[in-house]
Amino acid sequence: MVGNRCLLLGGGGFIGQNLTELLLDFGYSVTVFDRNLESKCVPLLKKVAYIEGDFFQQEHYAELLRNQDFVIHLISSVGPSSSMNFANKPYEQDVLKSIQLLDDCRKAGINRVIFLSSGGTVYGQRIEQSILKEDVDITNPINHYGIMKLTIEKIVLMYNELYNMENIVLRVANPYGKGQNTNKKIGAVSIFLDNILNNRPINLYGVGDTVRDYIDVSDVCEGIRAAINYQINDVIVPIFNIGTGKGYSLVDVIRLIEEVTQKKASIVFEEKRAIDVMYNVLDPLKSEKQLGFKANTLLSEGIRKLYAN
Amino acid sequence: MVGNRCLLLGGGGFIGQNLTELLLDFGYSVTVFDRNLESKCVPLLKKVAYIEGDFFQQEHYAELLRNQDFVIHLISSVGPSSSMNFANKPYEQDVLKSIQLLDDCRKAGINRVIFLSSGGTVYGQRIEQSILKEDVDITNPINHYGIMKLTIEKIVLMYNELYNMENIVLRVANPYGKGQNTNKKIGAVSIFLDNILNNRPINLYGVGDTVRDYIDVSDVCEGIRAAINYQINDVIVPIFNIGTGKGYSLVDVIRLIEEVTQKKASIVFEEKRAIDVMYNVLDPLKSEKQLGFKANTLLSEGIRKLYAN
Repeated sequence: MVGNRCLLLGGGGFIGQNLTELLLDFGYSVTVFDRNLESKCVPLLKKVAYIEGDFFQQEHYAELLRNQDFVIHLISSVGPSSSMNFANKPYEQDVLKSIQLLDDCRKAGINRVIFLSSGGTVYGQRIEQSILKEDVDITNPINHYGIMKLTIEKIVLMYNELYNMENIVLRVANPYGKGQNTNKKIGAVSIFLDNILNNRPINLYGVGDTVRDYIDVSDVCEGIRAAINYQINDVIVPIFNIGTGKGYSLVDVIRLIEEVTQKKASIVFEEKRAIDVMYNVLDPLKSEKQLGFKANTLLSEGIRKLYAN
Repeated sequence: MVGNRCLLLGGGGFIGQNLTELLLDFGYSVTVFDRNLESKCVPLLKKVAYIEGDFFQQEHYAELLRNQDFVIHLISSVGPSSSMNFANKPYEQDVLKSIQLLDDCRKAGINRVIFLSSGGTVYGQRIEQSILKEDVDITNPINHYGIMKLTIEKIVLMYNELYNMENIVLRVANPYGKGQNTNKKIGAVSIFLDNILNNRPINLYGVGDTVRDYIDVSDVCEGIRAAINYQINDVIVPIFNIGTGKGYSLVDVIRLIEEVTQKKASIVFEEKRAIDVMYNVLDPLKSEKQLGFKANTLLSEGIRKLYAN
């Protein structure tokens, strides 16, 4: 048994807030660590301990790790796009601090860190459009964000091998849903819906034919919950896609939102960005088989839920 | 055509010195960059430009890159073992400075960096003992050195994808041969030979059954020369094993040296190290087919050459 006391690093963000609620429902004792909790409009839930701080400014994590059973690591200092303007940051900050975190977990006797990686970027560009498998497909990201995530994946797994930790890597597809901040330039579903509802034009890079695997945040949280209870073994590399296995182009997404909202989108086409891969759909079979997790929300359904909110 | 003016970063080291001689023979114009050239007993060859400096202390590489056609990057700040004592160093120094190098190459109009990666560490531990293929086998290193090499591999390939560079990654097996410094704790063949000839005991970690792919440094240099002339294309990922495809255990190596020298080794068995993989033999087929390179020196032959020196 892993225990029920959980430290959520980055728990004030989009996935973190949804996850906090789910974990509370299942009886976990949750500590949320994040910076600027108030400015993030985090609802101060009873039964949750909130600690404000900057992950990248902490010398050590010993204090934070006291009386915890496991850690969920949701923090990044950059996104795919910004990582190209601050190329050193992901290595100096995210990689080094993740090493520190793992070292401090070992010292604190915490055996499991669940690291949220990026299914959307670690696989990189490929010639054929085929569904991506954790143990088969090569990983050549085309932005520093993806390379950083992959580097931390390797470090996390090395700690399993060398120190008998039971860390798990989750390669999450493109999440959307309740609480996603549409001011950040990430999350096509939420941004497009917001723009259509507010009669603002949608900016598309290229012709809108890039295909992604969009996953409802409630499904992402179920995937994480499944990982908490997963029994590590020597045969299966504990890297799991958290996706739906279904691909939608940006134009498909717009059409679905138009259907749900009964409003017409206005689209502005912009130049294709080099850091975007053409096709990215994650094979869900390994996590289905190993974690017993399957994403249940259809994209049309997820958009409907979001619209109803 | 790539051009014939070559900057050799780390050209004063073991592989670098051998490579310098080979490239001169083939009419290349060679600039060797390294620190402490004199203390490294680098023979000052005519026709070679020597520049002394510390790769990790340079702000920029523009000066170094002036009037060069391509770069061969042989520098690491750590080895597999020391990387575990200085976990931040490979990311802060090697990764960040390699990014700087690639950026400066772009600015200087240099399109090709040949990056020497580590076939011995990037693949990591595996359950079955099978020969390792560049595009098939998963890469989960068990030391920071291997993760650093892999991270730089990814960055090097990203620059190909985003900026149309024609960089090449060579995953070199365990090199041995002329000029290897036996004071460094790396290079089993050279160290064992030296110890046997000087009647010193050989320290073996574990029972000496770890299997490696030992390659004569002259073959490594031929592999690099082949990479200089390789024509990049869109279908083949330019990562190539530089190995022999043949595996020898440490005990095999000792037996071969005993045969060649007609002297008996005395062996001291020490505790197995966690950072050593059990089996590491590189499949040579991709580099044979693509680079037209094949390692020709048998291990027994290589040991004989080294003994005769």
